[in-house]
Amino acid sequence: MSDLKLNLKNARKEVDKTIKSLLPIGKGIEKKLFEAINYSILSSGKRLRPFLVIQSSKLFDVDEKNALRVASSIEMIHAYSLIHDDLPAMDNDILRRGLLTTHKKYNEATAILAGDSLLTLSFQILSDSLTHNDPKIRCELIYELAKAAGACGMVAGQMMDLEAEKKKLSIGVITRIQRLKTGALIAFSCDAGAILGRAEKKHKFALQGYAHDIGLAYQIRDDLLDVTSTTKKLGKKVNKDKKSGKKNFVSILGRDRAKKQLEFLGNQAIKHLEIFDRKADLLREVAQFIVERNK
Amino acid sequence: MSDLKLNLKNARKEVDKTIKSLLPIGKGIEKKLFEAINYSILSSGKRLRPFLVIQSSKLFDVDEKNALRVASSIEMIHAYSLIHDDLPAMDNDILRRGLLTTHKKYNEATAILAGDSLLTLSFQILSDSLTHNDPKIRCELIYELAKAAGACGMVAGQMMDLEAEKKKLSIGVITRIQRLKTGALIAFSCDAGAILGRAEKKHKFALQGYAHDIGLAYQIRDDLLDVTSTTKKLGKKVNKDKKSGKKNFVSILGRDRAKKQLEFLGNQAIKHLEIFDRKADLLREVAQFIVERNK
Repeated sequence: MSDLKLNLKNARKEVDKTIKSLLPIGKGIEKKLFEAINYSILSSGKRLRPFLVIQSSKLFDVDEKNALRVASSIEMIHAYSLIHDDLPAMDNDILRRGLLTTHKKYNEATAILAGDSLLTLSFQILSDSLTHNDPKIRCELIYELAKAAGACGMVAGQMMDLEAEKKKLSIGVITRIQRLKTGALIAFSCDAGAILGRAEKKHKFALQGYAHDIGLAYQIRDDLLDVTSTTKKLGKKVNKDKKSGKKNFVSILGRDRAKKQLEFLGNQAIKHLEIFDRKADLLREVAQFIVERNK
Repeated sequence: MSDLKLNLKNARKEVDKTIKSLLPIGKGIEKKLFEAINYSILSSGKRLRPFLVIQSSKLFDVDEKNALRVASSIEMIHAYSLIHDDLPAMDNDILRRGLLTTHKKYNEATAILAGDSLLTLSFQILSDSLTHNDPKIRCELIYELAKAAGACGMVAGQMMDLEAEKKKLSIGVITRIQRLKTGALIAFSCDAGAILGRAEKKHKFALQGYAHDIGLAYQIRDDLLDVTSTTKKLGKKVNKDKKSGKKNFVSILGRDRAKKQLEFLGNQAIKHLEIFDRKADLLREVAQFIVERNK
């Protein structure tokens, strides 16, 4: 197993342990809600965003306990967004990570409430003194996460994505949608380490550049996999954009140019990390992994 | 106009001005999202929760600007909960405050995202230094609000309420559902003033007792209005629980005992305020208003 794979696996274990310790439990009439929350967040997933929090935190010698709590809260936001995006009124997806989506496994009402719960819990965790002993840092994390996830960030991206299905889009608009829908949370994941570690501006900027590039690369790779992979390999439907007629990076640029753009972004992301020493090696490997990943 | 009505009207004006200044605006593809957010929160409503924040803040001489921001953020949580509760997968309501519900006016996807946006924005506002210059107080507000609104608070209440439709309930369980579904946010609205004003424990406890009683009274009055009022007067469907066979305070206690319980709670709420001087007069009037309200 490569260094990255081993480290991803270990991080996943630690993050899931932390998430589990933070989820609500109970036996009342609301038990189904807790089960749906558990199912949605603990069943699967690469834990890429948590890994970015942990690795960016390592650059500034942040206590791992603090990083793990922030990582968990970002994964909760990610899980909430997937639950809501999968709903029949939105993307109407049946499969996610090879398993039934939350509204298919339970029902729509439970899925909506499980998403709402995870979103709310995420901010509760960040506000807790266990996440960092300086309340100013906790507030900064909450402010930046809310900005990244909210109506001018991730949610705007999802809204634009839904509206886009009926529209002819330029590469500029598609880039903006991606930057909001998936890029904002990836960017915050890197920023979180810098905030926790009270990083200097030059280090913050370097990480922002890196995050921007890997976020875009991730989406281009997603669009490529949508036309080159299979449902079995990906654990979710393929050829989705083609069928719905929605424009994406591959349908506009073509496969070859999309691949070249992907490689360019991967290299550029790694260049942004030059300011850091060997401590950033795993972040470098993440960029490479995003360019090459098969699922 | 009574003192209370005039004060409610003035508070509503100030709160709406603050809310308006905090909502996202823009002209992009996501414009519909911003319109739906505006429609959901600014169209109507009594602004009872914001009023409780403002009045509880006055007890401890909190700067009104701070109170207005917290009041706005609580109203956003309230609005988000109404949008999601009204969805077809949940209570499937068409009318709210005499107007079309958000998913009827726009569509389901937009309504889900508008709710998500308001929930997220609420925490963003609280984390901002404009809300209070002490980040410890901001974190305490966020922590308590998340607890009141999340999977062990308001969301649990909604989940229980949905599950309850199929079940025979005792008065104890109905009280627990109410305490979570509507009581928790009303309680936080009173607590917010105490947090902002760094209140002593005895004052906190007195307000908690008051909030507990008016929260329960509010729900009993709601259940009474459901069988005694009209859709025209209330601006929402009546006889809902009777039609769905769902148990509530009135169907279990009967109208007379429910009315007596309502009056008892109103008086008890006012008694809790004995520790405060004339500054609490409007809170006393609120308790009276809740007992007597016709919509």
